[in-house]
Amino acid sequence: MTNYLDKAITLAEMVEGQTSCNPPVGAIIVKDGRIIGMGAHLKQGERHAEIQAIDMAGAEHVEGSTMYVSLEPCSHFGKTPPCAKRIIETGIARVIYAARDVTLPATGHRMMEEAGVKVDYRPHPRSERLYQPFFESKKSETPIVTVKVSASIDGKQATDHNESQWITNPDVKTDVFQLRHHHDAIITGSGTLHSDNPSLTVRRENGHHPTRVILSRSGKIQWDAQLFHDHQAPIFIYTENAQLQTSLSHVEIVYLERCEVSAILKDLYQKGFGRVLVEAGPNVTSQFLSSNMITHFILYLAPKLIGGQGLNQFYQTDEIKKLNHLHQFEIVETSLIDTNVKIHMKRK
Amino acid sequence: MTNYLDKAITLAEMVEGQTSCNPPVGAIIVKDGRIIGMGAHLKQGERHAEIQAIDMAGAEHVEGSTMYVSLEPCSHFGKTPPCAKRIIETGIARVIYAARDVTLPATGHRMMEEAGVKVDYRPHPRSERLYQPFFESKKSETPIVTVKVSASIDGKQATDHNESQWITNPDVKTDVFQLRHHHDAIITGSGTLHSDNPSLTVRRENGHHPTRVILSRSGKIQWDAQLFHDHQAPIFIYTENAQLQTSLSHVEIVYLERCEVSAILKDLYQKGFGRVLVEAGPNVTSQFLSSNMITHFILYLAPKLIGGQGLNQFYQTDEIKKLNHLHQFEIVETSLIDTNVKIHMKRK
Repeated sequence: MTNYLDKAITLAEMVEGQTSCNPPVGAIIVKDGRIIGMGAHLKQGERHAEIQAIDMAGAEHVEGSTMYVSLEPCSHFGKTPPCAKRIIETGIARVIYAARDVTLPATGHRMMEEAGVKVDYRPHPRSERLYQPFFESKKSETPIVTVKVSASIDGKQATDHNESQWITNPDVKTDVFQLRHHHDAIITGSGTLHSDNPSLTVRRENGHHPTRVILSRSGKIQWDAQLFHDHQAPIFIYTENAQLQTSLSHVEIVYLERCEVSAILKDLYQKGFGRVLVEAGPNVTSQFLSSNMITHFILYLAPKLIGGQGLNQFYQTDEIKKLNHLHQFEIVETSLIDTNVKIHMKRK
Repeated sequence: MTNYLDKAITLAEMVEGQTSCNPPVGAIIVKDGRIIGMGAHLKQGERHAEIQAIDMAGAEHVEGSTMYVSLEPCSHFGKTPPCAKRIIETGIARVIYAARDVTLPATGHRMMEEAGVKVDYRPHPRSERLYQPFFESKKSETPIVTVKVSASIDGKQATDHNESQWITNPDVKTDVFQLRHHHDAIITGSGTLHSDNPSLTVRRENGHHPTRVILSRSGKIQWDAQLFHDHQAPIFIYTENAQLQTSLSHVEIVYLERCEVSAILKDLYQKGFGRVLVEAGPNVTSQFLSSNMITHFILYLAPKLIGGQGLNQFYQTDEIKKLNHLHQFEIVETSLIDTNVKIHMKRK
């Protein structure tokens, strides 16, 4: 049994990954010792969690109540009017929130307090975990980036003969579907398209298919690849080839003078992608891992030794760094997935 | 990260203890791989979880969607129209639920299936845990009963001189407030009123104060007891004394020819109490523990030896049972609360 603020954060966690560039938020309204309204922000551009909760309770019933919310209520006019204003209007007596929105100039805290609402900022570790990547993403105007790699225990995604199916076990695949489900887009390289011919969809009940993003500097695209033949999600191709064109209605070509990680990420953020997953071969994977622009690194390891010369080691760079200048990560969690290990890391 | 059915059950668990004789229910509506509505049944007589979720999504947007719900949607007219009917009308394509409502003659499953909705019953252990006590309670027309005892490690609630404050530590008190919060009423004996003079309220932020129920066969009531002087929650006095009266507006006298556990529980259920907590001295505690009408038994043990003749052992009976006929419990969970042990048991 948890307290109300915990419950509000749980609601936020339930919608993590479906709010694009907006933060996931949950709200609970309590009056006379009972929950009278619950809400979550379900989609960018739609009602905020606070408003959903007020609507569930009925605006006429919330006077004198307490609202618990995972993030500080907003005080600005965005796609919807400010929540702080609505909270004041409906006579909610007290607001307790778990994280400060550091990306906004004006604060809902102050607006509500000046209107006589009792406001408490009560920092919470689960809220911090939830919002820290979002704040960084908003500041840098790039999406939250997760890099996913499946490899042998000696760090290879395939043999030197490019054989790669199946290194990890089928349960890892299920876990990857879950991972895809919580991202707006999947980034891969044209090399992976040619070697693996993946569909990059989410094969689970009521799964959300992320937009597929293909990186191809040269613009040499194998148009018979499987993913051009389903219309489950739109496709973007980033290229330095200004001549590249397509007649496929679900495919859009994005020309960039220089197809580099930061330019691609900034463009994706502009297009509204808040969370992207990189699932690619050594080339694209290494570009992202060395970019310092990623948040999560999920590594699935099968306890197998591939050997060879390591043409498909997942991390390869031209630059040789000094040992005390390496990219470092913090291990968030390790778990067993059947016979494989999953290591969830965050950039340090 | 959990699946949608888990999330629906989490919503139900959030409102456990605030739905009186109704079951706590949670619902999630999913369309195109995203949550478009969430709901929970917040109070007996108010909208069911399914309707809350449809309202949040907007009835015009749910066509073709999937609803995940912790309990089978109802098909009968109660205080609200049947959820199954509303689901059919709005064009929801599929319903997945985690527990069957075995207390109702007609089923929502059948009604929806006959109308062309795809319906799946997908049993879930968390849902079973949530609803089994509720089903038993409904069948027996008695509330779900939790007995709470704080005792020394040798099983005594007080010394032979009736000294009892404090045997367990202050953190146990906080845990007891949480426990009270999730019950509609607290039952105690007039003896406890005299010896401990408790207020039986919930001293936590936005706590819900349960109704106080006092058992007094004789009707000898010490009217200067603390709880008669606050109006935080109503008070019922069950007595065999037909003469007992009061002028206090928040106190109601209930005369029963025989003030026995089963009669009291049936009367409380009739009055709308779905969950009651017994917090009393050895006499009342023993009556309930030996009644076979309780679901949960929460025992807080302080690692202290009280000794004496054991006048205040928490369990005392006139009848001597054979060893193979004893009341038995199943241990659900044990936990440490600071220096004390909490043992949560269920009737076997």
